[in-house]
Amino acid sequence: MPIAQAVREALASSSLIRRMFEEGNELKKKYSPVFDFSIGNPDLEPPGAFHRVFTQLAQEDLRGSHGYMPNAGFPEVREALAKKASRDHHCTVPPSHIIMAVGAAGGLNVVFKSILNPGDEVIVPTPYFMEYRAYAANHGGRLIEVPSGPGFNLNMGAIEGALSERTAAVLINSPHNPTGRIYSEKEITALADPLRRHGKKSGRYPYLVADEPYREIVYGGTAVPPVLSAYEESIAVTSYSKSLSLPGERIGYIALGPGAGSPDDTLGALIYATRVLGFVNAPALMQRIVARLTEERVAVEVYARRRDAFKEVLNSAGIDYVEPEGAFYIFAKVPGKEPADDRAFSDCLKRRLILGVGGSSFMAPGWIRFAYCVDEDLIRSSAPAFKAAMEEWTGLSGA
Amino acid sequence: MPIAQAVREALASSSLIRRMFEEGNELKKKYSPVFDFSIGNPDLEPPGAFHRVFTQLAQEDLRGSHGYMPNAGFPEVREALAKKASRDHHCTVPPSHIIMAVGAAGGLNVVFKSILNPGDEVIVPTPYFMEYRAYAANHGGRLIEVPSGPGFNLNMGAIEGALSERTAAVLINSPHNPTGRIYSEKEITALADPLRRHGKKSGRYPYLVADEPYREIVYGGTAVPPVLSAYEESIAVTSYSKSLSLPGERIGYIALGPGAGSPDDTLGALIYATRVLGFVNAPALMQRIVARLTEERVAVEVYARRRDAFKEVLNSAGIDYVEPEGAFYIFAKVPGKEPADDRAFSDCLKRRLILGVGGSSFMAPGWIRFAYCVDEDLIRSSAPAFKAAMEEWTGLSGA
Repeated sequence: MPIAQAVREALASSSLIRRMFEEGNELKKKYSPVFDFSIGNPDLEPPGAFHRVFTQLAQEDLRGSHGYMPNAGFPEVREALAKKASRDHHCTVPPSHIIMAVGAAGGLNVVFKSILNPGDEVIVPTPYFMEYRAYAANHGGRLIEVPSGPGFNLNMGAIEGALSERTAAVLINSPHNPTGRIYSEKEITALADPLRRHGKKSGRYPYLVADEPYREIVYGGTAVPPVLSAYEESIAVTSYSKSLSLPGERIGYIALGPGAGSPDDTLGALIYATRVLGFVNAPALMQRIVARLTEERVAVEVYARRRDAFKEVLNSAGIDYVEPEGAFYIFAKVPGKEPADDRAFSDCLKRRLILGVGGSSFMAPGWIRFAYCVDEDLIRSSAPAFKAAMEEWTGLSGA
Repeated sequence: MPIAQAVREALASSSLIRRMFEEGNELKKKYSPVFDFSIGNPDLEPPGAFHRVFTQLAQEDLRGSHGYMPNAGFPEVREALAKKASRDHHCTVPPSHIIMAVGAAGGLNVVFKSILNPGDEVIVPTPYFMEYRAYAANHGGRLIEVPSGPGFNLNMGAIEGALSERTAAVLINSPHNPTGRIYSEKEITALADPLRRHGKKSGRYPYLVADEPYREIVYGGTAVPPVLSAYEESIAVTSYSKSLSLPGERIGYIALGPGAGSPDDTLGALIYATRVLGFVNAPALMQRIVARLTEERVAVEVYARRRDAFKEVLNSAGIDYVEPEGAFYIFAKVPGKEPADDRAFSDCLKRRLILGVGGSSFMAPGWIRFAYCVDEDLIRSSAPAFKAAMEEWTGLSGA
């Protein structure tokens, strides 16, 4: 029987990525090792503190602890996370501005359901995580893509030029998938100016939506700058999928800026959307666990060592890349004359059993993303394969 | 800043229910006891087996067990639940036809996202759980309400008369909220006929979507008849919110009938919708727990005793009701001449500190729902209040 036409079209267009995964699986049946750097699935275990709290809650298992609570979450959990959000964002986020979410993907859907009217636009710099397109479309919105600046900085001119009366939000992601970049405090502050100007002129202040699932995955003492204190109408969405390696448990939260929205309206909308989209509330047990782990994160130093290993591998193969400041991706430039063909380069790597994701999948043709949430040994042992692939590629492309 | 217009309208129209809850809370601050039968929040604890498995999994806490798995769920979990669905529905449901869901509310949103084109219709008998309206609207669909037959049976004529080229699905709920009815095997089988006739004539077979969160909450040895074996294009959605008293944990599943859809299309759509609506997957830990508890359920005999107590209370007050066969609701007729005013009757009860939900909230004016997932003593001790309210009501209404 028929399925929704929009879903049929989405399935057809995602067949390329599905074929890529299937080919990867086929390779793994035939060869070992396959250097699979295609998937952003954190392989580190949750920190020891997670196991302690988990066991403790299992032993206590208090009456009613698996029951319904307010749709926004347990009050004591919202209170604990409001303190965390206040520290992260250099301002006082009240507990009422925290809405527990079914991961960042759930949180973004709740935000878009709450703020998008049919035909509304969400401005997003390229490259970007391709699921954003579906998240906006689910709720009648559409993405307006704008180019990034040099080094994948925010391009203020491009963003300002894209603002219109249909603009409901500007969506940023930092630390960034796929580039590993962190937007500087200066960039975030500067971004507020065109948004305020546009709001003043048009009467509609766009929301600044910050997707921050990688906020805790940063290197070299970098801190991710605050967003909620930089612009009034801002919303941060985060999750524990990466910071505590709990992607399967679907737990995260939305933090509404202290001065954002009209509190009744916007909070009411976020809570209503949480309910009617069928999330109802974020999973109860995980809410109670993460509230006790606000000072914990996975062993980021392991990701840091892998990042360094990957840089060495790419350096010795002569492949340029963006210096990763956070997340666990390294975004490499397809060598040779522009426009370089990332699909052809992916195929060339695949013949050496190296799997990455071509930048075209992030609206950045000519680039390729490698995920380094895999064993350091696998990264190091891929060096000869990278070199061999580069020799072939140089011959093919005349680079 | 602005919120979505559709959300603003929904918030405004739900203000009545919010006011009711606020009034209830105000009453509880002033008086004790308040006979609060308004909320369908299961108060029984999960069965002992839940605590055993929970503790066991916390102690094992296997590597990778909180990580991503396929969007449809862990393969071994889908296998265990396919066996359960096969037993429930008297047919062989393959594991690939089980999609783990974030509760039944999440599951219904996934189903509607998968099958609804803009403007498509979902036929639903009145009364019904009012959230269905939002679930359909989220994905561009709308509910077409049809009356039930006498005793809240399925009204085949009304359903057949409402079928159109826009009909994507017929949505049924059994055991039923708010009536407590269970549709008989004969009714379910009979419903398949008009659906098949319509499909043959129009080329579009409507899906039969069965919302079954109360399937395990049944009395007097009744069994809920199978749906997936009764009609080819059927989808059952269920959850562990009531059967294991885990509503806060958001765990359930979708079972696609063995012959439903074109397998690639429909399963692909359900999995895609699970992903892009931001559920991504049902919570990992709870998936693993419920897979080991397919033979368990809460102490239904406790609900049965409460049901009997409530019947006695209503009998002695002279209030008629539908005999509850399942779920934990008793649906009572507002006494007096029709059309009886359920809002006025609710107010009259409230003056005696009794809280129920007027049938108007379920599109069944003239009725009132009492939830008996509360202590048996509270139910029994409400008898004098019910009698006093009835005396007042008889005076008021001249019944």
